[in-house]
Amino acid sequence: MRATIMHKAGDVRIENVPDAAIQQPTDAIIRITRACICGSDLWPYRDMTPADGGRPMGHEAIGVVVEVGRDVERIKPGQVVIMPFAFSDNSCLFCDEGLHTACVHGGFFGIGGGIGGAQAEALRIPLADGTLYPIDVAEDDALMPGLLTLSDVLGTGHHAAVKAKVRPGSTVAVVGDGAVGLCAVIAARRLGAERIIMMGRHDARIALAREFGATDIVSDRGAEAIERVRELTGGLGVQSVLECVGSEDAISTSMGIVRAGGAVGRVGVPHYSAVPEAQPMFYRNVAVAGGPAPVRAYIADLLPDIVEGRIEPGRVFDRTVDLSGVPDGYRAMDARTALKVLVRP
Amino acid sequence: MRATIMHKAGDVRIENVPDAAIQQPTDAIIRITRACICGSDLWPYRDMTPADGGRPMGHEAIGVVVEVGRDVERIKPGQVVIMPFAFSDNSCLFCDEGLHTACVHGGFFGIGGGIGGAQAEALRIPLADGTLYPIDVAEDDALMPGLLTLSDVLGTGHHAAVKAKVRPGSTVAVVGDGAVGLCAVIAARRLGAERIIMMGRHDARIALAREFGATDIVSDRGAEAIERVRELTGGLGVQSVLECVGSEDAISTSMGIVRAGGAVGRVGVPHYSAVPEAQPMFYRNVAVAGGPAPVRAYIADLLPDIVEGRIEPGRVFDRTVDLSGVPDGYRAMDARTALKVLVRP
Repeated sequence: MRATIMHKAGDVRIENVPDAAIQQPTDAIIRITRACICGSDLWPYRDMTPADGGRPMGHEAIGVVVEVGRDVERIKPGQVVIMPFAFSDNSCLFCDEGLHTACVHGGFFGIGGGIGGAQAEALRIPLADGTLYPIDVAEDDALMPGLLTLSDVLGTGHHAAVKAKVRPGSTVAVVGDGAVGLCAVIAARRLGAERIIMMGRHDARIALAREFGATDIVSDRGAEAIERVRELTGGLGVQSVLECVGSEDAISTSMGIVRAGGAVGRVGVPHYSAVPEAQPMFYRNVAVAGGPAPVRAYIADLLPDIVEGRIEPGRVFDRTVDLSGVPDGYRAMDARTALKVLVRP
Repeated sequence: MRATIMHKAGDVRIENVPDAAIQQPTDAIIRITRACICGSDLWPYRDMTPADGGRPMGHEAIGVVVEVGRDVERIKPGQVVIMPFAFSDNSCLFCDEGLHTACVHGGFFGIGGGIGGAQAEALRIPLADGTLYPIDVAEDDALMPGLLTLSDVLGTGHHAAVKAKVRPGSTVAVVGDGAVGLCAVIAARRLGAERIIMMGRHDARIALAREFGATDIVSDRGAEAIERVRELTGGLGVQSVLECVGSEDAISTSMGIVRAGGAVGRVGVPHYSAVPEAQPMFYRNVAVAGGPAPVRAYIADLLPDIVEGRIEPGRVFDRTVDLSGVPDGYRAMDARTALKVLVRP
């Protein structure tokens, strides 16, 4: 079968690899019907060093179950399923608490280590009963782009909002105008935020942010951005910061714009080793929380809003490619000429 | 009147200063009946450089109101009152949210800047109506030591527990065996923690921690302490860490013993500039929160448990001095031969 393999920074190839096959009795095999390229895939695309055999890429997908191992009971061949970016048993103490990304038997797709990637024709799903979320929607339904965001970016934006304690009436800032940031706008509005300040500077993304519910746009950076958000909030800063980038600049800006007693929800994979401003953070009683989103836990809550048309996260996809177009997709997202690339293998 | 002035590290003196007097129509003057020395007073006692005129010390007190400004309505002369370590209007947007330590008109006692200290015969209380909490207890009641902890250490330990999300059944670690750490044990137990691991090595404090509800003691430090807590918790770490020290070691230990999905509640004044372990903290979805406790907000909740004898935080006081004994009190606390010194001016 064909799959996307990254060999080093800038070097993504579509290659023939052994067919996905059952290895454990709890596995399933899915035929990938929709996948996509994630902003977090751009980190290795920019800094990966050559690794033996390369790394299978992709961690977001919808697919059709084609085979299940002998211990799989809930998942059946033929089902259309959402594949969260992490696999999990959905039964350990962490999963019971809704933190599937800390599952004691779990792990992540698309980072190697014997687990495949979703930018491929098919994929082996460990712990299929715990991991996959069957949906009663035809595999070519027009809702597919929106449903695909449940595998990562919408759940991740929602996690940022939950961890930043967004509630009805909240004043919110979203740091990052990528697909996760835009989904964070949707999530913040969905949780009742009254004011949503999008920090971004890319015209098309800003326009989409406004349609998703952003009430203010701050296109400055660094100290100017902090000053501008403070101006917009009577000098106080915002109650909730949804940090959707992961850079040192992004977390510094977040600490500068959060209000006393407020919270920063981090979902951008951090490329810094310590959370800055520990003393102002303390004196102002600011909380910092977040991490890899337990999207598996959020699907049931978010799905009806997509199916019933109340939110349209699928609009973050602005380009569609087949597998052979994936390397071009990486180039376009890296150059920010594409927001998020949908893959139809 | 006589008051405690710190001139530089190690140099605390009892001096004659101008009598406390009304300056603003919202002020009150209290005669201090009980004050104490705080673990946080030891930071300047160890590192303060000479400053012009010195710094009036003390931020915890119970007193009797002797005079009120013309705009004071709620507070009356003769009342016995608890003085939280921060003054606040109890009516701004932050106070309304229960974050009195971010009051837009507020500030802190015992740090200078025109505000006096409580280790003195009397003290001017700004924003008296918002700040002071009258209690219906005689000024020499046997409960006074316990009630005095409502001005700081019990409320601060409670804040650590709240910010670390202690709930019924929680597994908790308390970092620091000072008075705040011991009060944090009380607070964690009061909120229903099932297991409370005290990190400390001082025999008398450990004994008191056990009486307050600690179920396990870890007397190691650094990597050994982390390993020991992990052993005690099936390798997982604890759900809630109550960080009651503020040193770089204390926060590093806290990050090492917190469980995935857990929270660190910081109340030790941080002597580090960045929160370490930002990446493990992220991958494990750990939250860090806390800061100066809004003890004013907590008094109503905690007071009945003291008055009705369910908790005995007053036991953290193991020495009583008059004003002239305050410098000795600092020496004893610095040498850890006293846990917490009560002052009867």
